[in-house]
Amino acid sequence: MKIFLSDAEFSARRALIRQRLDERDLDSLCLFSPTQVFYLTGFSFIATERPIGLVYHAEKDRIVLFIPFLEREHAEESHSDEIRTYREYPGDTHPMEQFANLLREIGLAGKRVGADSDGYGGGWGYVGPKLSEVISTDVVPAKEIIEKAMWIKTPEEIGLIRESCKWGNLAHRLLQEYTAVGLVETDISIRASYEASMAMINTLGPDYRSTKWEAFAAQANFRGQIGAQSAVPHAITTNARLRFGDVLVTGASSEIGGYISELERTMILGKPTEKQEKFFNLMLDTQNLAFETIKPGSRCSDVDKAVGEFYKEKGITEYWRHHTGHTIGFGMHESPFFDSADHTIIKPGMVFTVEPGIYVRGFAGFRHSDTILVTENGIEMLTYYPRDLEDLIILA
Amino acid sequence: MKIFLSDAEFSARRALIRQRLDERDLDSLCLFSPTQVFYLTGFSFIATERPIGLVYHAEKDRIVLFIPFLEREHAEESHSDEIRTYREYPGDTHPMEQFANLLREIGLAGKRVGADSDGYGGGWGYVGPKLSEVISTDVVPAKEIIEKAMWIKTPEEIGLIRESCKWGNLAHRLLQEYTAVGLVETDISIRASYEASMAMINTLGPDYRSTKWEAFAAQANFRGQIGAQSAVPHAITTNARLRFGDVLVTGASSEIGGYISELERTMILGKPTEKQEKFFNLMLDTQNLAFETIKPGSRCSDVDKAVGEFYKEKGITEYWRHHTGHTIGFGMHESPFFDSADHTIIKPGMVFTVEPGIYVRGFAGFRHSDTILVTENGIEMLTYYPRDLEDLIILA
Repeated sequence: MKIFLSDAEFSARRALIRQRLDERDLDSLCLFSPTQVFYLTGFSFIATERPIGLVYHAEKDRIVLFIPFLEREHAEESHSDEIRTYREYPGDTHPMEQFANLLREIGLAGKRVGADSDGYGGGWGYVGPKLSEVISTDVVPAKEIIEKAMWIKTPEEIGLIRESCKWGNLAHRLLQEYTAVGLVETDISIRASYEASMAMINTLGPDYRSTKWEAFAAQANFRGQIGAQSAVPHAITTNARLRFGDVLVTGASSEIGGYISELERTMILGKPTEKQEKFFNLMLDTQNLAFETIKPGSRCSDVDKAVGEFYKEKGITEYWRHHTGHTIGFGMHESPFFDSADHTIIKPGMVFTVEPGIYVRGFAGFRHSDTILVTENGIEMLTYYPRDLEDLIILA
Repeated sequence: MKIFLSDAEFSARRALIRQRLDERDLDSLCLFSPTQVFYLTGFSFIATERPIGLVYHAEKDRIVLFIPFLEREHAEESHSDEIRTYREYPGDTHPMEQFANLLREIGLAGKRVGADSDGYGGGWGYVGPKLSEVISTDVVPAKEIIEKAMWIKTPEEIGLIRESCKWGNLAHRLLQEYTAVGLVETDISIRASYEASMAMINTLGPDYRSTKWEAFAAQANFRGQIGAQSAVPHAITTNARLRFGDVLVTGASSEIGGYISELERTMILGKPTEKQEKFFNLMLDTQNLAFETIKPGSRCSDVDKAVGEFYKEKGITEYWRHHTGHTIGFGMHESPFFDSADHTIIKPGMVFTVEPGIYVRGFAGFRHSDTILVTENGIEMLTYYPRDLEDLIILA
């Protein structure tokens, strides 16, 4: 069982990025985003006010990771050639000044340096200069080099996402099993996530490790989308108590080697009313239509436009709240998007969520989300939880 | 029981920021950071690729919140005067262009506009222009206006942090109770966090709501700091099984109205060895020294330097890995920091963590973290979990 990326995968990534740098006539690439640094090295850590940086020297084929001393052990486990640590943030010499010194030392002053951003993005109280303010060299915006490399998932990445779907499926099955009138959403969510996580940990064994800072290995929840509140697409948990007749919108996932998947379902607590059934089936029809529209060679916008037309045809445009889906893999939402203005061409190896929703304010929301892989001919469903109404009714 | 900030608190914040803008001769303030937007309006949501923006027009004393249509309901619950939504990201007209149009419409073109950053920081696949690229006006860096306003906590904020400490304390008590040889860390953490969360939800009642996207209302865990791995200060969960003789470094917190606290303890599973006891007591002495050094009127750096001197005096500098602490409140780490290079003057109302650690590679790590309030004369401990070795030994 593969539960993390192989050394060969990281070698291939490095070769790919080196080629992209060559095509753009860049001598090196600097990275500050934890996601892009993970892509190139597998370095995983908890990002704080302490900045990190990476410099890839293309000619020397050499990756130097620049990190706070605090993170030494995680850096040692990563696919980098050299680790430089700074003492602490803010520290006597600002880390970004030290990073600039490092670039000069390895001969990059005056060279063409690409960067995912012009300095560390920070948060958590970080303040610092831009990279271009501390080194006299061209800092060329190059965020898209790795971003676009991430668009097409490799067989290894797809394998991890497939495995993630399994444990998300288990967590969701338990969530459905424990859902009952009178319980608080958090109670049900935690119990399901706890049991799925323990099953996953015990099944995958001691080699299984999280690369992210999450309470659960696998999880399923409602995140506040309960009853009338299910009409709020990105609700936040309210600790609502479930009532008879509630429409519930769920979410489930798990993490394997840094990769995740997305599974969401609309469930109904009690016998559905006619109105609930109508909107549920409209939502299902919309999702089915979206699946049929996804084809390699088409554009992302084609899918979202077809879905938009369907809303219009059915007279439900007023219940629209968001575009059809996003790519997923290391990040929960990655680019490109199934959005009417995203004209990226769909290619085999892309992994998308498909999740058009119907949101009737004051009544209920209806959304399934499935994770799909674009193949040579169409799509393959990676999530496999039942989608039909009869399987999602809870008589309790 | 106060479990969220009052309307009066938000009015006072707005008045304070208006005064700061006046002092800096700024006509308005634009915010893109979810933290800074929360500070001014209480708007809480799940930040994604869809950008948000806020513009505060000082003369008109008017806050306009610019958000994706998806977030309408959360915006309606916030302390803003007007809500403008854009359809979707990326959408036909980029949201940042629409935000610039909004600024022009309300008469801010050519005015002095302060901003917490020059555009939306993003992540999740967001790409967009800087604010200064879409509007021909001076965009003055002004992140520090709200950052510094957040330094001094108000009585209401302190009340929420106090309440957070209580539930963190319960979660930690349960964690200690459930800690036993042979169990997987995740098992213990989830059980403790589950019970503490349910007690909290049932005690605070249906008005209690999370403002963040967290699985638990209250939680306690080890986050991988188990046995030799406890020497990695910011470890990530490995799902280790606890063994007799392990040193454990824990963490606990809870969220109330957006505010959190931090409680961390070093526990020992089994009768401590002489070496474990020696380092535990050195860590405790270091923390005690730090407590004594914190005084209003001193500088943050004074505390960290005194701690550094103590490490030197005791001959344990090689076991140092990070500075003494950080402020906390809405964010997990806020500025200023107890760092040798942070010369901010300590003032009453600041809330800090105090957490000097000792990390012996290959052996174990030792760290307590307490949340303290700076008073007129010194400090008040807000966390109150036992700190002595005898209370933190688990004989199981």
